[in-house]
Amino acid sequence: MAADPEPTETVPASPPPVPVYFVAEQTGISAEAMGNALLVQFPDIVFERHRIPFITSIAEARRAVAVLDAAMKGPRQPLVFTTIADDTISGILRSSRAPIIDFVSSHLGQLERILGSRALHLAVRVHGVDDLAKYDRRMAAVEYAIEHDDGESLRHYDDADVILLAPSRCGKTPTTMYLALQHSVFVANYPLVPEDLETIDLPDPVRKLRARCFGILTTPERLAQVRHERRPDSTYSSIEQCRWELKRAEIMFRSHRIPTVNSSAKSVEEMSTVILQHLNRP
Amino acid sequence: MAADPEPTETVPASPPPVPVYFVAEQTGISAEAMGNALLVQFPDIVFERHRIPFITSIAEARRAVAVLDAAMKGPRQPLVFTTIADDTISGILRSSRAPIIDFVSSHLGQLERILGSRALHLAVRVHGVDDLAKYDRRMAAVEYAIEHDDGESLRHYDDADVILLAPSRCGKTPTTMYLALQHSVFVANYPLVPEDLETIDLPDPVRKLRARCFGILTTPERLAQVRHERRPDSTYSSIEQCRWELKRAEIMFRSHRIPTVNSSAKSVEEMSTVILQHLNRP
Repeated sequence: MAADPEPTETVPASPPPVPVYFVAEQTGISAEAMGNALLVQFPDIVFERHRIPFITSIAEARRAVAVLDAAMKGPRQPLVFTTIADDTISGILRSSRAPIIDFVSSHLGQLERILGSRALHLAVRVHGVDDLAKYDRRMAAVEYAIEHDDGESLRHYDDADVILLAPSRCGKTPTTMYLALQHSVFVANYPLVPEDLETIDLPDPVRKLRARCFGILTTPERLAQVRHERRPDSTYSSIEQCRWELKRAEIMFRSHRIPTVNSSAKSVEEMSTVILQHLNRP
Repeated sequence: MAADPEPTETVPASPPPVPVYFVAEQTGISAEAMGNALLVQFPDIVFERHRIPFITSIAEARRAVAVLDAAMKGPRQPLVFTTIADDTISGILRSSRAPIIDFVSSHLGQLERILGSRALHLAVRVHGVDDLAKYDRRMAAVEYAIEHDDGESLRHYDDADVILLAPSRCGKTPTTMYLALQHSVFVANYPLVPEDLETIDLPDPVRKLRARCFGILTTPERLAQVRHERRPDSTYSSIEQCRWELKRAEIMFRSHRIPTVNSSAKSVEEMSTVILQHLNRP
């Protein structure tokens, strides 16, 4: 017996994503940073991000306009975030029919008035290597971070601006790398192993460097989860062991008045900001 | 014989730096990125940067206003860049007498009109860990980068999104870390040692992964300089050796149609942007 054809079930179609373009003369990092800071204000909209970096010639600007105008024919109006400072390139971009949010031209006039000075109105590299000594120091910081990761080498702890202390898998390494790469800070990190945690004394290699130490803590649940991925069902990843190590580390930090940050709810950017505030560095 | 008192030599006083404040509900990374993109347009002015992050309460906002108003009494009018989305906090900040460039409130209305949607107007974490799976992937990318740095482990090359190839000291490692940290890309890097460079064949560990390879080159002069810092006056750091290695690497890359980027004039941000464009990833 043939069933009556059932009506086709209609799943409510999710709206198409809004295309977002970050257009820049250089890497587009600034346009993306600010664009994203605005887009998070619309949590119910899905965005589809595209980068159009290194737009430095009239021909490239025209190609970018062609991409944006093509996007205007799609189901959702695109958004364009730019940081173009060159007046010619900026003018070409504005010939696009797409709505453009230009973080540079919107504010440059205001800044010129406040500073009483005329801006260049030219493409300038924000993320360049023009200051070679500064760039080399940054690269040296990355190298230092890798050499001194996870207690790998204890030789040059004296050169560290900050030494991160924490039990294994609390998030020392990514924070170390971030501080080195983004802020040229010389960071060593030292893993507190269970033997270290049996006393409240600071481990030998950092004993005389208390003032530069910074502790990282997390929750036992998060630590157990992260450790479980590395060594499932081990003592190492058991909640009891994690709880004990964190408790002992906390006591150690407190008794030496070492500042701490909790990695369970903080990203590397957030932890790094806390650590930099403590170091009182820009 | 007493000499006549000479007139005190007057060195032309350099103008005091302009204090710049980045005020934010979170880390301040977006405000700083955009603020710096504007400040580079004034290369003749010296700026003195300060961060005031984590302003989330009325009391903290009032303390920030006190800092800004105090700065107004200094020799140069301060600049303030903010990304405050919370209307209450933003209102308190605007009670400061300092000129404020607010990247969020300046553009949120325009975005609301384009998107036909009301923004949250609340502090939202841009650099948070709310999407734990995404955050864990990022942390895994950093771990992968460290494990596969400088040919350390060849085990999981298959998992790499990209494999950076270059002679020693061309800048593989910082670029690797940047791509991992900022873009969650799984990057391995493989050092081309002189033996590798004696043939144009790709080294064994990457032979079957040509499509994921990316070459880094630099100038012989820059390479010699960087190597000299590590091993002064060695064959390794000699200009002849650097020239030979770079030439051979270039021939290898060209014969396998491996794309390349030159690190001598590009920062890690710029190289990473080029590599991401090639990977066609946002």
